[in-house]
Amino acid sequence: LAELAARGLSGLGELVEGADLGELIARALQAQHPVRPLHDGQVVAIAHKVVSKAEGAVVDLRTVTPSPRALELAAEASPTPLGEHKDPRMVQVVLDQSRELVRSAKGVLVSRTHHGFVCANAGVDASNSAAPEIAIVLPRDPDRSAREIRGRLRELTGAAPAVVISDSFGRAWRHGQSDVAIGCAGLNPLDDWRGRTDSAGMPLRATWLAVADAITGLADLVRAKDSREPVVIVDGLERFVTPGDGPGAAALIRPLEEDLFR
Amino acid sequence: LAELAARGLSGLGELVEGADLGELIARALQAQHPVRPLHDGQVVAIAHKVVSKAEGAVVDLRTVTPSPRALELAAEASPTPLGEHKDPRMVQVVLDQSRELVRSAKGVLVSRTHHGFVCANAGVDASNSAAPEIAIVLPRDPDRSAREIRGRLRELTGAAPAVVISDSFGRAWRHGQSDVAIGCAGLNPLDDWRGRTDSAGMPLRATWLAVADAITGLADLVRAKDSREPVVIVDGLERFVTPGDGPGAAALIRPLEEDLFR
Repeated sequence: LAELAARGLSGLGELVEGADLGELIARALQAQHPVRPLHDGQVVAIAHKVVSKAEGAVVDLRTVTPSPRALELAAEASPTPLGEHKDPRMVQVVLDQSRELVRSAKGVLVSRTHHGFVCANAGVDASNSAAPEIAIVLPRDPDRSAREIRGRLRELTGAAPAVVISDSFGRAWRHGQSDVAIGCAGLNPLDDWRGRTDSAGMPLRATWLAVADAITGLADLVRAKDSREPVVIVDGLERFVTPGDGPGAAALIRPLEEDLFR
Repeated sequence: LAELAARGLSGLGELVEGADLGELIARALQAQHPVRPLHDGQVVAIAHKVVSKAEGAVVDLRTVTPSPRALELAAEASPTPLGEHKDPRMVQVVLDQSRELVRSAKGVLVSRTHHGFVCANAGVDASNSAAPEIAIVLPRDPDRSAREIRGRLRELTGAAPAVVISDSFGRAWRHGQSDVAIGCAGLNPLDDWRGRTDSAGMPLRATWLAVADAITGLADLVRAKDSREPVVIVDGLERFVTPGDGPGAAALIRPLEEDLFR
C-alpha cells in the first residue's frame, strides 16, 4: 500500500580516501538482496561526507595558516551561537571554499561556495570525523560524483538508479537544518507544474517542486544521526528517475541575478 | 524492510467552509482500513489548503479594494517571473496577511506573515481553487488547527497520531519550492543533536534536524499535484511522535533578532 518507502543501507564500512564508493554500495546491497540488489527506478541517497572522504575532499587543519582576514572573522564570530570559539584555521578553509561571503554576523558565516551553493561555513564540517584536526569539505563537483557512482552501480548491478548526494543546510528564517541535494544523476531535480492545470482544470500557478531536495530530506529522516548509514534507498519515486544523467543539482541553484538577498 | 513508508489518502471529497476535516480524514481512513484505521505513531501530513478552506481562511477578491501602496507594489512587481500581471487586490491580501514586507523586487513579494513565517506572497494563493476570484490564505493559527484535527482524530479513532500542516515555500538561493511545516501537534518538530556525540564518540556540532519540514517534504513527493490527495499518512517516524501536543511549528520560526537578512 505504501507509495513511497525508504530504508537505510548498513554494512558500508569506514570510508577512506580512494575508496570505490559505488562498489561498496553495490556490495552492501548485494549482501542484503542477493537476487536483485538494485532496480532502475530506485533512488540512492548519499550523505556527502562519505563521498568527500572517498574523494579526499578533506583538509588537514595542521597545514592551514589563517590569513589576517580569517583571524579577524574568527574573532568577530566568537563565541558562536553554541558558545564555541571559532577556529581561525576552519574560517580559512571556509574562505578557501567560498566564491563570496554573503553574511558574517552573530557567529555565523554564510557564503556562496565555488559551486554556487549559499550555506553556512561553505559546507565545511569537522563533525563525524574520527580525526578532530581534519575538516571535511564539499566534493569538488558533486554532480560528477553522482554520475560516477551511478555509472559504477550500473556496471556492477546492471541497474541504473538515480543517485543524489546531500548536505544539511541551515535556513535563513527557520530553525534547524534541512538536507538539500548538492549533486544528482538520473534524477529530475525539479518537477515543474507551473502553467499546468489542476484536476479541476484551474491553473497551478506556482508549483515547482524541488524533488531532489525533498528526497534528501526524507533520507535524513531515515538515517539515524549516530548510526553509520550514510546511504538510504528510496522506492516509489520512479516517475522522477531518468535514463540519462540529466542536469544535476546545478539546476537547483538560483542564479546570482535572481538573488534578492545579496 | 522499509523503515519509512508513506501513502496518499484518497476519498476526502471537496472541502467546504465549516467542514469537519478531522472527521473526513477519519472516515477516509476507516474506508481504507476498517479494522485499525490509525496508529499512535503515525504522522498525518495535510496540505494547508484544505485546512484553510475548512476554516474559511479565504478572501473574496471582489470585496477587496487595493490601497495606493498595493497598486504601486502590483505595478512594480509586474510582469512576474512567470510573465503574469500582478493583481493589486491579491497584493492587498498579501499586505493584510503580513507583519512586514521583507523584500519587494523582481516581481516577487517576500513578507513575514503575522505568524512569523518568511515566504513569498505571505502564503496567499489562488491556485487549485475552483473559484478564480477567491484567494486562499494561511490558517490563522495553524498549530491550533493541527491540535484540533489531532483531537478530533483521537475522539473518532482512539489513536493519537502526529498531525502536521504544510505549505510550499520558495527558497532564497535555490530554485523550486519545498514544503515546510506551518503547524503541527504531537510531533517533535526539531531533533536536536547539537552537543551530542556520534558513533565514534566525536561531537556532532551542528546537527539540528528540522523533522517537521522533512516530513512535509516527503508528503509532497507522495502527493501528485493534480490529484485530490491533500493528506498523506507516514509510518516509521514513531520516535518523533509525542503523547502531548508539543511546541508546534512555531518552534521552527527563527526569531527576528537572529535574522541576518533583514
